[in-house]
Amino acid sequence: MVITTAHPLLAALAAELPPDRLTTDPAGTARYAADRSGFQPAGAPLAVAHPASADETAAVLRHAYALRVPVVPRGAGTGLSGGAVAGPDSLVLDLSRMNRVLRLSPEDQLAVVEPGVVTADLDRAAAAHGLRYAPDPASAAISTIGGNIATNAGGLRCAKYGVTREAVLGLEAVLADGTRLRTGRATVKGVTGYDLTALLTGSEGTLAVITAATVRLRPVPAETGTLAAFFDTFADAAAAATALTAAGVEPALAELLDGSVLAALDAHQGGGLRERGGALLIVQCDGTGAGADTARAARLLAGHGAARVETAGDAAGAEALLAARRLALPALERTGRPLIEDVAVPRSRLAAAVREIERISAAHGVPVHTLAHAADGNLHPILVTDPDLPEIPERVWRAADEIFTAALRLGGTLTGEHGVGLLKRRWLARELGPENLALQRRVKDAFDPRHLLNPGKAL
Amino acid sequence: MVITTAHPLLAALAAELPPDRLTTDPAGTARYAADRSGFQPAGAPLAVAHPASADETAAVLRHAYALRVPVVPRGAGTGLSGGAVAGPDSLVLDLSRMNRVLRLSPEDQLAVVEPGVVTADLDRAAAAHGLRYAPDPASAAISTIGGNIATNAGGLRCAKYGVTREAVLGLEAVLADGTRLRTGRATVKGVTGYDLTALLTGSEGTLAVITAATVRLRPVPAETGTLAAFFDTFADAAAAATALTAAGVEPALAELLDGSVLAALDAHQGGGLRERGGALLIVQCDGTGAGADTARAARLLAGHGAARVETAGDAAGAEALLAARRLALPALERTGRPLIEDVAVPRSRLAAAVREIERISAAHGVPVHTLAHAADGNLHPILVTDPDLPEIPERVWRAADEIFTAALRLGGTLTGEHGVGLLKRRWLARELGPENLALQRRVKDAFDPRHLLNPGKAL
Repeated sequence: MVITTAHPLLAALAAELPPDRLTTDPAGTARYAADRSGFQPAGAPLAVAHPASADETAAVLRHAYALRVPVVPRGAGTGLSGGAVAGPDSLVLDLSRMNRVLRLSPEDQLAVVEPGVVTADLDRAAAAHGLRYAPDPASAAISTIGGNIATNAGGLRCAKYGVTREAVLGLEAVLADGTRLRTGRATVKGVTGYDLTALLTGSEGTLAVITAATVRLRPVPAETGTLAAFFDTFADAAAAATALTAAGVEPALAELLDGSVLAALDAHQGGGLRERGGALLIVQCDGTGAGADTARAARLLAGHGAARVETAGDAAGAEALLAARRLALPALERTGRPLIEDVAVPRSRLAAAVREIERISAAHGVPVHTLAHAADGNLHPILVTDPDLPEIPERVWRAADEIFTAALRLGGTLTGEHGVGLLKRRWLARELGPENLALQRRVKDAFDPRHLLNPGKAL
Repeated sequence: MVITTAHPLLAALAAELPPDRLTTDPAGTARYAADRSGFQPAGAPLAVAHPASADETAAVLRHAYALRVPVVPRGAGTGLSGGAVAGPDSLVLDLSRMNRVLRLSPEDQLAVVEPGVVTADLDRAAAAHGLRYAPDPASAAISTIGGNIATNAGGLRCAKYGVTREAVLGLEAVLADGTRLRTGRATVKGVTGYDLTALLTGSEGTLAVITAATVRLRPVPAETGTLAAFFDTFADAAAAATALTAAGVEPALAELLDGSVLAALDAHQGGGLRERGGALLIVQCDGTGAGADTARAARLLAGHGAARVETAGDAAGAEALLAARRLALPALERTGRPLIEDVAVPRSRLAAAVREIERISAAHGVPVHTLAHAADGNLHPILVTDPDLPEIPERVWRAADEIFTAALRLGGTLTGEHGVGLLKRRWLARELGPENLALQRRVKDAFDPRHLLNPGKAL
C-alpha cells in the first residue's frame, strides 16, 4: 500500500492547513472516489482536502499547481455524469464545508452563498422573505449550489424561469494556480467585459473552482395551480405536452413520467399511479391567475387525448404529485443499476424522441424508463441494468449510443442539464463539431494551461 | 488622397466578391466611420464590405486575417458606446444586408435569423404566430439582432424576461481567421461543452462575427395592464419603484423618467407630462391576472408617495405611454449633444443613485437627464452638452467619471446594457480588477490571437 502522506503535496498542505482539513487514509479517501453516476474509478484518490474558506481553497490549489497534481472539485457528489469521479493520482477538493449563506438581501432579491450550500437550504432561507431560488433540480434536497453551477443544473421550472445560469449574477473563483478573482456583479443587468460568469457556469470544474456565488432570488408566486393528466400511452402524453406549448401556455413545470416509472413508484411508495394511466403529465402554473391558466391547461389536455385529468385541490395535493416525480429516480434505483441519460430535443420533437427511445429499447432488449421535463424537451431515458454485473453490458452502451444519435438527428443535444462528465465524452465531438471543440480547448488553455482542474472531464 | 483600391485587401476582395459588396469611395466609407455614440474617429475607414452570406463573411475575414487588417463588424450603427466606430486603418464589415429570418418555428418557439434583421421586424414576424421576441431594447425599431447580441442588449422587459443572452440559444459565427463554427443549439436547455453562446453574447464583435442566431420566442401574454404614476421628485419615484420590487411585484417593465426628460418630451411631442409631476414611473404587468397585478401596483405606489396614478384604459393608452419612453432619447437629442451613460446598481440603491447623480450634476454645472429601467436598477443619466463645441468639455467627463465611481461604490456596474465600446474603456479595470481583466485578455487571445476583430473596443 502506498503511504500517501509521503507525497510532497500532502506534506505541504499539512504544514499550511489545520489538521481536520485533510483526509489521507484510504478508507476515508475511497468515499470520495465516485459520485452518483455509478462510475467506479481504478482506485482511491491521493487525498481529500476539505477547505473551510476561499483562502484555504486558494492555498490548496497553489500547492497542487506547483506540484502538478490534478484536482477534482466536488460538492455533494450527486452528479449523474461522473463529473466528480477522482482517479488515484488526483486530489479531491471537497467544498461541502463551505456551506454558509453569507448574505441574503430581500430588497435586492439576491443571496451570496458559499458553494457547499445545499440547494434546498438556500430556497428555505429565501422563503423566510417571500422569495425563492427559481432553479429547481430534482436533487435540490441533496445537491449543492456549487455543483448546480458546475453543471448549469436545470430541473423542473426551467422553461419559465430559466436554468442555473439565469440565476447566477456573479462568482468568486480560484484559478488552477491559486489566483482569486471575481466575475459578474450584484445587479440584474451588466455587460462590462466578457461574460465569464456564464462561461464558468456549466464548466464542470474544469476552468476554476467557485468559492462564492451571488444568485438571484425571485418572489414566491402569489398563486399556484397543479394538475395530473393521465394518458394511455407515453407518446400521447408527449404530444399533448407539445400541444400545450404550441397553445401558448407557459407552465412553471410540465413533468412527464412513463408507465414503467409509474409502476416503479407504485412499488416504492404504494398507491395506484399506474392503474390510472400509461403515462402521467404533471403541470403546474404559477403567478397571479394561475388557477385560470391551470384550468385552461386541463381543457387543452382533455382535448388532446388525456384519459383523465385531476386537479390538485390544495398545496398538499400538489406537493404529493411533485414528491412522486422527485422519488422517481430513487424508485428506479431499487430496480437495478440505472444509467441515466439526459438528452434534449426541440419541443415539437418530444413525441418523436419518445418513439425513438421505445424503438431502441425494444431492439436491444434493454429496459428504458423515461422521465421528461416536457416544457423543455429534456428527456431522461434511464437504462436499468443488473447491479450484479461487473460492468455495464455492451448492448446497454449500444442502446445509449443510439439514443444520443437519435437526439442529435432530431436537432437536439446529448445533455440538457447533467453535464458531459466522464460518461458522455465519447459523443462530444459529434455534437460540437471540430471547430467548436478546438476553440473550447483553447479556452481551457486560457484558464488552466497545465490541465490540472478536473482532467478528463467535460471536454 | 489615398487611392484606397490600391490596398491589397481591396484587390483580393474585389477578385472574390460581387462588385456591389464593397464600398471604397471616401464619401461612402465616411458614413460607416461613426455610430450613435457621437464619437468621431480620425478619418474614414479603409473600405466597407457588405457580405450577403456567411460564406462571403468568412471570405472577407480570411483575406483580412492574411493581410492583418483590423475588422470592425457593424449592424445598424445604433450603438451608444462607440463599439462600431472604425478608424482609418480598418475594414468595416457591414452585416446589414444579411437580414433574413431564415426559419420561424411556432411549435418550437424559436427563430433562426441573420444578424442584420431589425429587432422589431423579428418581433413582428413572431407576432403573426402569437409569439414575441422578449428582449425589448428601446432602439428595437432601428437596431439589429446582431448588434443586440454583440452588446447583450437589455431594454424594457428584462427584469421579468431576461436580457438578450437569455433569448439566444445558439449561434453561427466566423472567427477572425475565417473559420466557421456553430455554438449552442435549438433546445431550451443544453450543457454540452462550454457556453460559448453566452461568451459571444456581449463580446462586442471582439471574439467572432455572428452570421446567424437561433433565438427563443415566447407567447404574447394573454393580458396586459399599464399604469403611469407621477411623483413630486425623482428620488421619491425611485424609492417607490424599489418598494414595488420589495413587495414581490414582478412587472414586465418599470420605466422611470425624471422631470427634465418629461419637459423635453413635452417640447418634442406636445402634451402635458411635466405639469402632472416631477417624475414619471410607467409600470406594465403582463400575463393572466395582469389586471389584478397592475391594480396592486397602483395601490402600492399610491401608498409610497405617488401624487397621481393613471391606469391606461386600453392598449392604445398603454402604447402612448411607452411611445413617450421610446421618444425620450430623440427628444433629448434635440436639446444638445447627449453623452448617454448606462450605470446599473442593486435595486435597493436606485434612489441613492438618483441622489448621487443629482448631486454630481449640480456640482459640475452639467445638466443630467435621467431615464431608468427601474426594476433592473439600470439608469441612463444623459449628460447634454453644447453641440457646437468641438469636443466634449472636460467637466462633462469629470461628471461622468463621478457617476461611474458612484455606481461602483453602490455595488453596481459601469454599463448595464450598452457595452463598454470605446467610451468606457478607461474605467474597465476599476470594475473588473486586474485578475479578471488578465483572464479576459487570455480569452481574447484564444479567439483572436492577432487582435484583428474590433481592436481597441470592449477590453
